Amino acid sequence: MTAHILTIGDEILIGQIIDSNSAWMAEQLNLQGILVTKIVSISDTAEVIRKALDDSFTETNLILMTGGLGPTKDDITKKTLAEYYGVGMSFHEASFERLSEMFARWGRSTTPAHREQCFMPDNAKILTNKAGTAPGMWFDNAGKVAVSMPGVPYEMKYLMEQEVLPLITKTFPGKPITHRTILTIGEGESRIAHRIQDIEDGLPNHIKLAYLPNLGQVRLRLSATGDNLLELKKDLNTQATLIEACIPEFVFGYEKDTIENVMGQLLLKNKKTIATAESCTGGLVAHRITSIPGASAYFEGSIIAYSYALKEKLLNVAPEILKIYGAVSEETVQAMLKGLLENLGTDIGVAISGIAGPGGGTPEKPVGTIWIAVGDKNKTNTLKLQLGKSRSNNIKYTATKALDMVRRFLLENS
Amino acid sequence: MTAHILTIGDEILIGQIIDSNSAWMAEQLNLQGILVTKIVSISDTAEVIRKALDDSFTETNLILMTGGLGPTKDDITKKTLAEYYGVGMSFHEASFERLSEMFARWGRSTTPAHREQCFMPDNAKILTNKAGTAPGMWFDNAGKVAVSMPGVPYEMKYLMEQEVLPLITKTFPGKPITHRTILTIGEGESRIAHRIQDIEDGLPNHIKLAYLPNLGQVRLRLSATGDNLLELKKDLNTQATLIEACIPEFVFGYEKDTIENVMGQLLLKNKKTIATAESCTGGLVAHRITSIPGASAYFEGSIIAYSYALKEKLLNVAPEILKIYGAVSEETVQAMLKGLLENLGTDIGVAISGIAGPGGGTPEKPVGTIWIAVGDKNKTNTLKLQLGKSRSNNIKYTATKALDMVRRFLLENS
Repeated sequence: MTAHILTIGDEILIGQIIDSNSAWMAEQLNLQGILVTKIVSISDTAEVIRKALDDSFTETNLILMTGGLGPTKDDITKKTLAEYYGVGMSFHEASFERLSEMFARWGRSTTPAHREQCFMPDNAKILTNKAGTAPGMWFDNAGKVAVSMPGVPYEMKYLMEQEVLPLITKTFPGKPITHRTILTIGEGESRIAHRIQDIEDGLPNHIKLAYLPNLGQVRLRLSATGDNLLELKKDLNTQATLIEACIPEFVFGYEKDTIENVMGQLLLKNKKTIATAESCTGGLVAHRITSIPGASAYFEGSIIAYSYALKEKLLNVAPEILKIYGAVSEETVQAMLKGLLENLGTDIGVAISGIAGPGGGTPEKPVGTIWIAVGDKNKTNTLKLQLGKSRSNNIKYTATKALDMVRRFLLENS
Repeated sequence: MTAHILTIGDEILIGQIIDSNSAWMAEQLNLQGILVTKIVSISDTAEVIRKALDDSFTETNLILMTGGLGPTKDDITKKTLAEYYGVGMSFHEASFERLSEMFARWGRSTTPAHREQCFMPDNAKILTNKAGTAPGMWFDNAGKVAVSMPGVPYEMKYLMEQEVLPLITKTFPGKPITHRTILTIGEGESRIAHRIQDIEDGLPNHIKLAYLPNLGQVRLRLSATGDNLLELKKDLNTQATLIEACIPEFVFGYEKDTIENVMGQLLLKNKKTIATAESCTGGLVAHRITSIPGASAYFEGSIIAYSYALKEKLLNVAPEILKIYGAVSEETVQAMLKGLLENLGTDIGVAISGIAGPGGGTPEKPVGTIWIAVGDKNKTNTLKLQLGKSRSNNIKYTATKALDMVRRFLLENS
């Protein structure tokens, strides 16, 4: 069983928004054993939409569409679908009632555009959208199914979870495909490939391996297709275990794990608390730690000390240290860490200071020079990074590295 | 002039990565007057790649491809392109030398896979990739051009900027298209459409308007196509001015502006400094402020006080306030703000406390209850948000709202 995803709207084609919907939808379909074989973005032009539907229906029986359902004049998906199926459009009373009630609850009234949004193609099964104003639509034409949803991510997700996925399962009972992903950090794609070459060469035909590198991390994804889901999962486990045995020092997790949740789990397990003292990362480490639900069990707080004055005042860094070694130095991050642990009283701390760029570099300390200290009151690990010129990449990479240093510190000292 | 973007690799189709490359490439092409009419993601299967090339070449003369160029066995783009064009592959000495030097600089040696990466289709013009190991390729078959680049975002960007875009300009002198985007915050898509209806109805035929809503912001994008770029820009300015006059209170910027850079510019202009005291946002506001190069001119630092204890210790919040009103209350964020300004000595401060979810709600204060205070030593504005159940959305939306409150505070008080 396959599906295509069709994204409608100029905003993706002119690069003003990134298509994050398709990845999410593809993943949900995969979990149901449905293989997405194509994702296509096209403009919101009636002729182009009709051609895309025709093209896709020659390759698949299921098309999931997003976009073009808003209340404004540039949104033509609904009208185009009615034309495509050769049906008229009627006012859908229930949708308008729901919308009016929603607005009344917010103390607002509907506009004529909202009424317009409730005209629906006559052959559509209407999918109630409790997350927004535009309903979804399900078209089944002799087993060829097209689904239309709004492009706003949380509305699309609501409709997928509550309406579309259950209908898909009912309409297309699927054939199994399953994945297993090993997450690594600290080594590049080529070198990992070299280390696991024998395993990769010996993979059975129904298992595929892909390398997904990104900013210092490489994900190794094994995919298996076949008839028996339990057998497939067993096969993947066998291969994953073999691969992991070749590169144990780089594996930090599996599937949707993140460094921050793995680190969080270790803190919980070891009953330790943590705080951060950040300069160039500006709070990103704290933000990533607290993006995990339940982080309050181990995260106490942070001092973001961007200025010299605050490094002295809030982290007790001696003015002489800043004067002699500079704010970007091993001595300073060690002093920041010490001050952090003293003032916030956590078991473990992270301190970071560096030049994120694009300005602020010197010949001795060029842009991308960043120091990290991780430790407790007995032991400290420090690391100097020499990164590139992109401020955003430098900040992100440093945050990841710092979180990984905490993870390794916890593994070494427990 | 049009182009297609072709993304190769299962990682997008199974939803493990989000395709951020295509948006960036589309934007760059647009700036050169090239309209991207289709973005397609397909699997890394030789047959599928060949069919996609054939399909796209019936609609366009320019295809930009990313992905499938890595050193590992799942990367088949290069071999497939050689087959597609019916040519052989030869070892490209210059690429291997560059690669060996690069690795030598890092104190590492090359692997056999790296040597393999330097075999190139005989009809390809090789594009040097100084940002990574896999070179790009340019194929020109009687005016039908296909370009192949690695999928790693910074490598693709390097190749686009240094090699591909200049070659495109030389090969296809383009016809102008231009865009103008008005950024709004604080009002929904329908209501904005209602307010600007007369202007929208009166738009000339060569100008198109699109609404791009996302988490409390709506971008209004005007696009114009024609022959004379200067005329087009003038036309867009005229229409943009008319639109803005209908909704002045919601417009915060244009094009690639963000709330954080607009706010930063206002702080600079007013010579004010800022600090944040964050609980549920966990440092995201500080991170967004410091994502702007040069933020150190106005950003001093932050206290992330997740626990009651740190709210008392670092922000001088009286224990009675926390006891009587709770950590999520107007009284607490006001006290946090006061303590922040006292302890960090900035002109302006932001304080945030709330229940981001998914746990931690009560009947009186359900998940999504969040208080924000923004002010200086003379005046404070507070706001209560009642958001949904998504932790990630709640944190992001709150950060945006807080930054906008600072922007409005600066406009009102200067």
